[in-house]
Amino acid sequence: MAPKTDIEIARDAQKLPIGEVAATLGIPWEDLIPYGHDKAKLSADYIAGLKDRPRGKLILVTAVNPTPAGEGKTTTTVGLGDGLRAIGKKATVCIREASLGPCFGLKGGAAGGGHAQVVPMEEMNLHFTGDFHAITSAHNLLAAMIDNHIHWDNALDIDPRRVTWRRVMDMNDRALRQVVTSLGGPANGTPRESGFDITVASEVMAILCLATDLADLQRRLGDIIIGYRRDRTPVHARDLQADGAMTVLLQQAMQPNLVQTLENTPAFVHGGPFANIAHGCNSVIATDTALRLSDYVVTEAGFGADLGAEKFMNIKCRKAGLAPDAVVIVATVRALKMNGGVAKADLGGENVAAVTSGCANLARHIENVKKFGVPVIVGINHFVTDTEAELSAVQAFCRQFGVEAVVNHHWARGSAGITGMAEKVVALAEGGARNFSPIYPDDMSLFDKMDTVAREIYRADGVVADERVRAQLRAWEEAGHRSLPVCMAKTPYSFTADPTRGGAPTGFTIPVREVRLSAGAGFVVAICGDIMTMPGLPRQPAAERIRLDADGNIEGLF
Amino acid sequence: MAPKTDIEIARDAQKLPIGEVAATLGIPWEDLIPYGHDKAKLSADYIAGLKDRPRGKLILVTAVNPTPAGEGKTTTTVGLGDGLRAIGKKATVCIREASLGPCFGLKGGAAGGGHAQVVPMEEMNLHFTGDFHAITSAHNLLAAMIDNHIHWDNALDIDPRRVTWRRVMDMNDRALRQVVTSLGGPANGTPRESGFDITVASEVMAILCLATDLADLQRRLGDIIIGYRRDRTPVHARDLQADGAMTVLLQQAMQPNLVQTLENTPAFVHGGPFANIAHGCNSVIATDTALRLSDYVVTEAGFGADLGAEKFMNIKCRKAGLAPDAVVIVATVRALKMNGGVAKADLGGENVAAVTSGCANLARHIENVKKFGVPVIVGINHFVTDTEAELSAVQAFCRQFGVEAVVNHHWARGSAGITGMAEKVVALAEGGARNFSPIYPDDMSLFDKMDTVAREIYRADGVVADERVRAQLRAWEEAGHRSLPVCMAKTPYSFTADPTRGGAPTGFTIPVREVRLSAGAGFVVAICGDIMTMPGLPRQPAAERIRLDADGNIEGLF
Repeated sequence: MAPKTDIEIARDAQKLPIGEVAATLGIPWEDLIPYGHDKAKLSADYIAGLKDRPRGKLILVTAVNPTPAGEGKTTTTVGLGDGLRAIGKKATVCIREASLGPCFGLKGGAAGGGHAQVVPMEEMNLHFTGDFHAITSAHNLLAAMIDNHIHWDNALDIDPRRVTWRRVMDMNDRALRQVVTSLGGPANGTPRESGFDITVASEVMAILCLATDLADLQRRLGDIIIGYRRDRTPVHARDLQADGAMTVLLQQAMQPNLVQTLENTPAFVHGGPFANIAHGCNSVIATDTALRLSDYVVTEAGFGADLGAEKFMNIKCRKAGLAPDAVVIVATVRALKMNGGVAKADLGGENVAAVTSGCANLARHIENVKKFGVPVIVGINHFVTDTEAELSAVQAFCRQFGVEAVVNHHWARGSAGITGMAEKVVALAEGGARNFSPIYPDDMSLFDKMDTVAREIYRADGVVADERVRAQLRAWEEAGHRSLPVCMAKTPYSFTADPTRGGAPTGFTIPVREVRLSAGAGFVVAICGDIMTMPGLPRQPAAERIRLDADGNIEGLF
Repeated sequence: MAPKTDIEIARDAQKLPIGEVAATLGIPWEDLIPYGHDKAKLSADYIAGLKDRPRGKLILVTAVNPTPAGEGKTTTTVGLGDGLRAIGKKATVCIREASLGPCFGLKGGAAGGGHAQVVPMEEMNLHFTGDFHAITSAHNLLAAMIDNHIHWDNALDIDPRRVTWRRVMDMNDRALRQVVTSLGGPANGTPRESGFDITVASEVMAILCLATDLADLQRRLGDIIIGYRRDRTPVHARDLQADGAMTVLLQQAMQPNLVQTLENTPAFVHGGPFANIAHGCNSVIATDTALRLSDYVVTEAGFGADLGAEKFMNIKCRKAGLAPDAVVIVATVRALKMNGGVAKADLGGENVAAVTSGCANLARHIENVKKFGVPVIVGINHFVTDTEAELSAVQAFCRQFGVEAVVNHHWARGSAGITGMAEKVVALAEGGARNFSPIYPDDMSLFDKMDTVAREIYRADGVVADERVRAQLRAWEEAGHRSLPVCMAKTPYSFTADPTRGGAPTGFTIPVREVRLSAGAGFVVAICGDIMTMPGLPRQPAAERIRLDADGNIEGLF
């Protein structure tokens, strides 16, 4: 019999009614806002009532640089949550919501895999509780108000050539990347060049994921810079009186979503900011709420540790007053082989030398994470093709760095395959070794912050930027934005800006081509290379295969 | 003390948990998909199980031509539902969902008013259960797949100049009416002119509201014509293999939403197609489901009876095998005065002559509705400024046509203000006078159908159209679309195509400037004058005043 697919496993899940899942955390039914029988939001009032409770331990799951071989970061996050439950800890999982666009493009599935999944999987990959639609609406309301303001009398003197606020859609649609709007005569407004990003790239998404409550949300929305006047002074969303209505549109989306794993561990699935032009983490409000309801919260950060964990700690933790009690770096033998220079087609067969060579990538991530003052452990996500010699090589390598590497089997066996790791994570988190600190202080200059990340994390010889970029940074510092953290938008596939250079390269610089101020989210984005904020569909989009079967089950989404 | 506003009344509502509302109709909890504690969808399985049950009586609420004075059609629909409950009938209400766009433009409030409202009012005017967002996604997925197909190799030979499928957004945004997409070079596709409509104007919305089940939905989505090849043959959504994924996106949206009135009468709020380029009624699946669960279903149609009731009967009833057992035509003294030529500023003070003059408009609607073979009653929505003489004039006038006109006070008093009307509606509906028939047969030519509506309903001397329009209609007839009904897109403010001509004009023709084939929805749209499929925001958008107050209540939405 063929092994079950992810979706077959998910459909066999013995889900509990969401009220029972909530009850394991002590959340009363009346404080839930149910969405169907297996999803719920937590009421804002309930969350406000938790604020004096102590926080549990926070475990961050990150990974080596991603490769086409796959690493299983979400799968490990979910599996570790189940594993902690299995050894008696009150554990929860905090992951991001999935974007609709990619589901109809290449693939869906942002809910883990195998026997370590969050359910209901189909809905999580479709509309879920509507949060992303709310973000789309709030973002586009601001856009409509900008063009409307210019159309009527432009009392704010917005320069139509310098409107930086684009529109968004939760869709992969390359045709919308660059458009001219307001054609067709005066009744349709002032023509200008603009475009659409995918919703997860919206600053509103980043704001929702960093805001601590509705008041903070509204303040941040008001701080958004939508463009500039002819005298180059910024125009804010607040100047257009858009912040109130945007907050109203986001009121429900701000409430974290509760679902469950296949083993009924509570999972908060909330927010999904891009991990390049934004910080790529589960929302602050969900993580914080989970911490006040649990002994252990397992969460993940986007891409590899150079991008995701760096932003988790330098942006999310700094802003939210959080700190991980332990960090799990996920690796697979296959991904290490690819980082060691093996092509995907050649992954079959034992190759200890390639694994060892690829461990250089892992080693650098271990060192980097340690720089934040947090204990580290490596989780090897076991694949059936891995050999004992390959697994032992990784473990031996990690021991050189004083770090344990545990082979986990949660994909195949659920919590039973990861309880050993769970015990070790508890020992680490409770060992008192945490001495967290971001790697740059608030009062460092913006350029030096970028340079620090490039040198300390990427191991570059530094950042290279035009005088134009440097002058822009200085101007923002003078305008009061010096204390912001930086959000590095760089390829996730390499420590360098060149996606083809795996392993642990040295002797390179990081070119910062452009900088963008996300004044509402509260960071300065450094664009290092091409970044795509609106994907396209492939030649054969997944959408062509997605349909309902005769029983009303969804086919082709995964 | 000032009288309470609509929103204050709504917030004081003694709502029942939605499971209890459903229980009054015999719907078990497990067949509900709750959205919060006061909204739920009915499961598709449960609906399928109702199909052999008998249908209750269907009451249609329509109105005189709308004026700025307001008529209160939704308010009467809700009030009559409550009134029927109050006299012991198992009644439900079926109304349309509200569009987000207008809420941030001029006003919200598509949920009735005074003491005849559906709740939760705020959510109904915001994201509600996400149906419109799902429609937006499904519509725009098809758009993305079209441009993607042309980008890769255009195997279907779609003529980029003849793509008729636009994009949609649930927003008032004039800047998107006419745009050029795919600028920026080959990676962004093939540049072409296009634009956005508001979501309620989407053919997907019309399809969702006419589809009887998911299979019918998918068939109709596949039938959508997205544009034409160079040889002018149509390209369908099915040719792009988009119909399956669109159906998946709409699976939950197809399930009707259950909420309640202020008096806990069950209300199905589902669908919201534009009443000009679409048919403007609550969904067939919601109306049909309600009929199988109730003795009485009260529903409404868009605009005045010339547009809304005509389409309700010639399109929705024809396609769904429905027929109203009685029709209520709503009028107000103020609206009749305006139809009688009085300006809004001059509405104060008794003016029996103007009322009587305006009754010509009401008379024509009465005659028109009777042509469909259905019993008619007039409901006068009482305003505090109405005088006895004015009210009596309307009643006396209606008696000439053998029709009763009842003065209702549901706005001020809820069901207690409309029980008399409810008794009369029951008598009419159970009187056996119904002999329903659409006013044109399926096999009439498309042009003659338009001409029939113009002559019989508008009392025009006929339809005028270019040979180009006539040739297009003949071509569609030859392509197999002759049997479709026609959907007249005309100003709602007059029987003519001129919005300034109230009353009951004669001696005019109806110019059909353009025709459009909605092959998926199953009708041919006749555009008679300017129609706006993407509204703009006003100089001072309502959004500027919408915000949360200190208690988290929404201000300014209504």
